[in-house]
Amino acid sequence: MSDRNRRLVLAERPTGNCEAPTTRLEEHEVPEPGAGEALVHNRFLSIDPTIRTWMDDAPGYLPPIAIGDVVRCGAVGEVVSSNSDRYGQGDLVFGMSGWQDYAIADEGERTMQTLPEGIDPTAALSVFGVTGMTAYYGLIEVGKIAEGDVVVVSGAAGATGSIVGQIARIKGASRVVGIAGTPEKCAWLVDELGFDAAVNYKTDDVAAALRESCPDGIDLFFDNVGGEILDICLGQLALRGRIVLCGAIATYNERKVAGPGNYRMLIARRGRMEGFIILDYVGRFPEAQMQIGGWVAEGKVKFATHLVEGLENAPDALNLLFTGGNTGKVIVAVE
Amino acid sequence: MSDRNRRLVLAERPTGNCEAPTTRLEEHEVPEPGAGEALVHNRFLSIDPTIRTWMDDAPGYLPPIAIGDVVRCGAVGEVVSSNSDRYGQGDLVFGMSGWQDYAIADEGERTMQTLPEGIDPTAALSVFGVTGMTAYYGLIEVGKIAEGDVVVVSGAAGATGSIVGQIARIKGASRVVGIAGTPEKCAWLVDELGFDAAVNYKTDDVAAALRESCPDGIDLFFDNVGGEILDICLGQLALRGRIVLCGAIATYNERKVAGPGNYRMLIARRGRMEGFIILDYVGRFPEAQMQIGGWVAEGKVKFATHLVEGLENAPDALNLLFTGGNTGKVIVAVE
Repeated sequence: MSDRNRRLVLAERPTGNCEAPTTRLEEHEVPEPGAGEALVHNRFLSIDPTIRTWMDDAPGYLPPIAIGDVVRCGAVGEVVSSNSDRYGQGDLVFGMSGWQDYAIADEGERTMQTLPEGIDPTAALSVFGVTGMTAYYGLIEVGKIAEGDVVVVSGAAGATGSIVGQIARIKGASRVVGIAGTPEKCAWLVDELGFDAAVNYKTDDVAAALRESCPDGIDLFFDNVGGEILDICLGQLALRGRIVLCGAIATYNERKVAGPGNYRMLIARRGRMEGFIILDYVGRFPEAQMQIGGWVAEGKVKFATHLVEGLENAPDALNLLFTGGNTGKVIVAVE
Repeated sequence: MSDRNRRLVLAERPTGNCEAPTTRLEEHEVPEPGAGEALVHNRFLSIDPTIRTWMDDAPGYLPPIAIGDVVRCGAVGEVVSSNSDRYGQGDLVFGMSGWQDYAIADEGERTMQTLPEGIDPTAALSVFGVTGMTAYYGLIEVGKIAEGDVVVVSGAAGATGSIVGQIARIKGASRVVGIAGTPEKCAWLVDELGFDAAVNYKTDDVAAALRESCPDGIDLFFDNVGGEILDICLGQLALRGRIVLCGAIATYNERKVAGPGNYRMLIARRGRMEGFIILDYVGRFPEAQMQIGGWVAEGKVKFATHLVEGLENAPDALNLLFTGGNTGKVIVAVE
């Protein structure tokens, strides 16, 4: 355990991937917890595409990270000292933190919650965390998945996409098709996760492959990617089709985003395209966590973790999401 | 009354506006009504942007007009002879017809309905027709207009847009802003129809004008136009804002449509963009017709008609919609 607090702060706003000099490693004193506070030693950091959007100076659902501030992320850490009855030494806690060794948990603000016994910390950040919640509420509440739906998922081998496809299966989709970027990912989706088909967007003709997989059109498209794939799926929307806008990872590194020209299909097909932010569902997380917990126990939902060692590698870990270098949830093991 | 049946048939698919040689004027024998049929002499033709989409060989909510077929449109006509108990000589009837002097009404197919006594034929094609129905169900059912909403309408001086703004006012919108293309149209919206503000997209900085008119963002954008105006409104969407996609007149003449790059605001703002086709609401037209009839009688909803004389001028009448040459509903008086 370090006696210094390493912090990766935002040095410059990136124009593309999170390359030097986007972040700067600083060393600070380990913070002292005040009354009602606990000192948390971060163990695992959740690496999500949305972090990249917070690095831009653009309006969003949370304020941009200020230059000089630690990069914001979800994390699981261990309480190493406590002045609060809420947090005991040795407790694992999770919540919003940052790319740093240490954080302060404040019982008043309640941004850090104690992890229930027996929950693996990496699972807490993926299938039971924001990732799983995003898949669950995005598909069910925003997408209104219905029995018999033909479902297509982009970024399907990613943390959220891989869960979306499996929940779609459980909810009675007639067909689940994933879009991913390598033959290995495509094989994993079909062989391990039970997708009906997978399309490799780097080598396949996506439009032709989807027409073949979904000859009657797409009832529900869960989009993590945006860009050309969104446009193709709009073009193949079935009557009263729904597009769940979860993310747009293909566009986060772009200054000028090209919109989907096929958006007019929403008129002819009476379609709906809707975005959401999972923070709106925080109060309902326990319901989804219990439901997903049951599915995991039954073996109906599987999840993969892509572990990156070392706090200093957090920027590279983030870039994996944009280069397609990961399968499943990217998590940084702090040390 | 002509003893020949003039018909404007689709000669070639247009690449832009409906210019020669898109249509060809043909003269045919006046058709003979069979058993259960009536001969209808068209009096007024409804000129709608959607006609332009039917001229393309592209998937849509109705089949494209075939080359050599009469151009499809809604119309009001007079029964001149009848072999059906359903239609009496002299009755005014309305329904799907075409750019032609005569049509056959078939009591079996019931595509032609008898116009109730006392309804002006041009009102039947505008405020009580598909135009008014589109405004009503688009705003209420698709847009879910709520008291206090800030509402923006594009194509606001058009047939549908002008009704949308007035219904929004009746339904308790806190602010109604129209976008139109001339100072006269803008003045009409504000002075005659009760819009709070109007933006001239040809001379104003639309983004800046909307930011000023709607400082807290747009709750409901009713879009008849598409293109850059849609992109601007997406960029200014309020939290849980809704975009009703009614039409995309700015794009109908384009081969390659530029999509709205700001679509990602739907994610951050938890927004919804949804299209619809008014034909899905046909069974509920009487409800809206009664409601709108009441508002017209009370003077709360006003409507304008832009009459074009002569069947042969139907292509020019259609082009008015794309050049912004009309205020209110464009109707062709057949002779």
